[in-house]
Amino acid sequence: MTAPFILVNYKTYLESTGQRGHRIATAARDVAAESGVTIGVAPAYMDIHPISRHFEIPVYAQHVDWVLPGASTGHVTAEALHQAGAIGSLVNHSERRLTLADIEASIRALREKKMVAVVCTNNEPVSAAAAALNPDYIAIEPPELIGSGVSVSKANPDIISRSVEVVRRVYPAAKILAGAGIQSGECVKIARDLGCDGVLLASSVIKAKNPALVLRDLVSPF
Amino acid sequence: MTAPFILVNYKTYLESTGQRGHRIATAARDVAAESGVTIGVAPAYMDIHPISRHFEIPVYAQHVDWVLPGASTGHVTAEALHQAGAIGSLVNHSERRLTLADIEASIRALREKKMVAVVCTNNEPVSAAAAALNPDYIAIEPPELIGSGVSVSKANPDIISRSVEVVRRVYPAAKILAGAGIQSGECVKIARDLGCDGVLLASSVIKAKNPALVLRDLVSPF
Amino acid sequence: MTAPFILVNYKTYLESTGQRGHRIATAARDVAAESGVTIGVAPAYMDIHPISRHFEIPVYAQHVDWVLPGASTGHVTAEALHQAGAIGSLVNHSERRLTLADIEASIRALREKKMVAVVCTNNEPVSAAAAALNPDYIAIEPPELIGSGVSVSKANPDIISRSVEVVRRVYPAAKILAGAGIQSGECVKIARDLGCDGVLLASSVIKAKNPALVLRDLVSPF
Amino acid sequence: MTAPFILVNYKTYLESTGQRGHRIATAARDVAAESGVTIGVAPAYMDIHPISRHFEIPVYAQHVDWVLPGASTGHVTAEALHQAGAIGSLVNHSERRLTLADIEASIRALREKKMVAVVCTNNEPVSAAAAALNPDYIAIEPPELIGSGVSVSKANPDIISRSVEVVRRVYPAAKILAGAGIQSGECVKIARDLGCDGVLLASSVIKAKNPALVLRDLVSPF
Repeated sequence: MTAPFILVNYKTYLESTGQRGHRIATAARDVAAESGVTIGVAPAYMDIHPISRHFEIPVYAQHVDWVLPGASTGHVTAEALHQAGAIGSLVNHSERRLTLADIEASIRALREKKMVAVVCTNNEPVSAAAAALNPDYIAIEPPELIGSGVSVSKANPDIISRSVEVVRRVYPAAKILAGAGIQSGECVKIARDLGCDGVLLASSVIKAKNPALVLRDLVSPF
Repeated sequence: MTAPFILVNYKTYLESTGQRGHRIATAARDVAAESGVTIGVAPAYMDIHPISRHFEIPVYAQHVDWVLPGASTGHVTAEALHQAGAIGSLVNHSERRLTLADIEASIRALREKKMVAVVCTNNEPVSAAAAALNPDYIAIEPPELIGSGVSVSKANPDIISRSVEVVRRVYPAAKILAGAGIQSGECVKIARDLGCDGVLLASSVIKAKNPALVLRDLVSPF
Repeated sequence: MTAPFILVNYKTYLESTGQRGHRIATAARDVAAESGVTIGVAPAYMDIHPISRHFEIPVYAQHVDWVLPGASTGHVTAEALHQAGAIGSLVNHSERRLTLADIEASIRALREKKMVAVVCTNNEPVSAAAAALNPDYIAIEPPELIGSGVSVSKANPDIISRSVEVVRRVYPAAKILAGAGIQSGECVKIARDLGCDGVLLASSVIKAKNPALVLRDLVSPF
Repeated sequence: MTAPFILVNYKTYLESTGQRGHRIATAARDVAAESGVTIGVAPAYMDIHPISRHFEIPVYAQHVDWVLPGASTGHVTAEALHQAGAIGSLVNHSERRLTLADIEASIRALREKKMVAVVCTNNEPVSAAAAALNPDYIAIEPPELIGSGVSVSKANPDIISRSVEVVRRVYPAAKILAGAGIQSGECVKIARDLGCDGVLLASSVIKAKNPALVLRDLVSPF
């Protein structure tokens, strides 16, 4: 079985902000080096530059705006993310929903900078719609599992496998992440068995006393 | 050639508000009766009830919210639209964009009340994504043409025909409306020739001195 | 003690939608007639017209948009509310927050139609800011109490009395409503004692088996 | 006359992104050193860390979110801005309007980190409302002047002087910036004469071939 892609969303946890975010990036780099698994991080905007300068791991933004260049204040352009060292961005995370038109424009803006779009979705029809936009990745986040403490893979594998099926049908080239309820290597393995190419996760790594330990468990089956 | 569906968006024009909206509904009813063409209207929320009580024409809402029942103020539920006499709703109009998750939930909420969803889109990939959600209608509104005074059909028929093609590929059962730049019967005919099932229009009817005259022109080729 | 103003927010409860909303309006009319207390209702947009035609009670909208006339779809103008029979509107309800610029523009749009603005606020500084915009009413909704089942007046009268004080200082002419946790006549009396001119409430009337009974209790101290 | 505060909003101009933003910060540092005038910059989030590390000039964010710590993706916390080196933030810029409740919460979040809040407003009543929230700065941006190429001070000094007056009445300790139509030292001088403590500007510096030259002109009267 090929290795999964593991993407760690820093969110706005205090445990992942500023200097502390480097501690998690260090763990990601070390476990990636040991295991050969690719581990990416999505820190706060302000931490993209320092982390991408210090570490040779893939750095993603948590969000990108589609805006006209210039007359926009407080917005985040693909160009600026690119210059800061990000190689891609989450798009439409459940905590930062976008209009359909903006999702499409964001994917396009990222593509123009050769950046990777990871579009988050919440159920089968939305996953099909997102797939029709041909993003690089689709991260399926069933709302039943977000922050629930229940493993996506154990709870109801059907949610994931049905979404994988509709995505594959609409856009076979899409890579798929399981985006909620990932806690252990067993979860990652089940996600892979259900057809996912990797996982998107946050709290179980960010809030861990020892992030490297959790990451090592996550990659252990591979 | 079968007759097109003509949907008149009242927007918030003074010319279509309150009592004046009845004048337009009267024109729609009369021209529909003369021609056999189905003409629907999408008035302000407040005018849905009086218009649907006075006229036997299809009445649509301009927008529907997907909200949890009860704890939402100032929002518009499919249930309440249904009770007021609407048979469907625009969804994601260019002047009222929704998140992808809300578009999907709105279509679902309308479907549960057996109401018709008319999802508005702005380009080919967004039309494909909307089609993946299986709504009844997709109204293609190329931003180049919205309020431009340029006819959609004359300006660049390719925008329409390419979007029609992607919609048909993703969801063959979808009905398609041309949703910008419709001014005359010739426009409607070209829209039909390009594969559309009808048109969505606003100002050319609403702001006309004589709405019936404009509607008669629109249906004249059929 | 002069009588309070009681404003019943219908929200989107099934119990207040369509025909059922008339049942509540009937109770409001009857109890108002019996007691001499003014009782207003804020039904769904679609029910503003039928209710204001059938009943001689004050009808409010739950929200008003500030939009340019014409090119806006799915929005609610003060003009259209006025024509439908509304005499005022809630503005910035906790379930429909607006930008500061839009709150100001909404108040202005209502004022131009001689309609009443009821601006909802959540704490002292926000109440002071709202007062600086000189609306007719300010409805203080402490988030600790919204939908909590705890009476605003019993729980922490200080929240209310401090907000009343700042509002009076900034704009003495403002009328003030207690906007959360109102369940009984005793609550209304305490709100009056704290300096409020009335109450804004929803579920305790809307979800009651017998709305007239609840309304009678609410007005019983006056 | 005491020196004004000059705050340069980088917006998302290509000319101010990444490495190019350092060029503008260099000009700000040099002209500030020559003249004794305080010149701050508000770059993209990603550039806050590198610019605040390289330059001893005040660095502001263009926006701050008020969000619960942790469960928010793609949002910007005061804590994270603080750790990145920002000393304050714009709040409610005309290109990033916030709800009234969020403006108040943003000011509070900044205050807790001892950071400076610069709240943008568009007219007199909105300026009064913002003043009631007691922020450090209020930046008055009359919409008639934003990006108009017309100087705020020349065009209609009354807009500014009336807003200054209402702000002073509601919160005398507030510092005030003229936030639109600033192009030259003469504009800055007139803004000072009208009672402003400084200016907020963007394109005239950012898009200049030689930003230092423009900054030197802006500070020339002092």
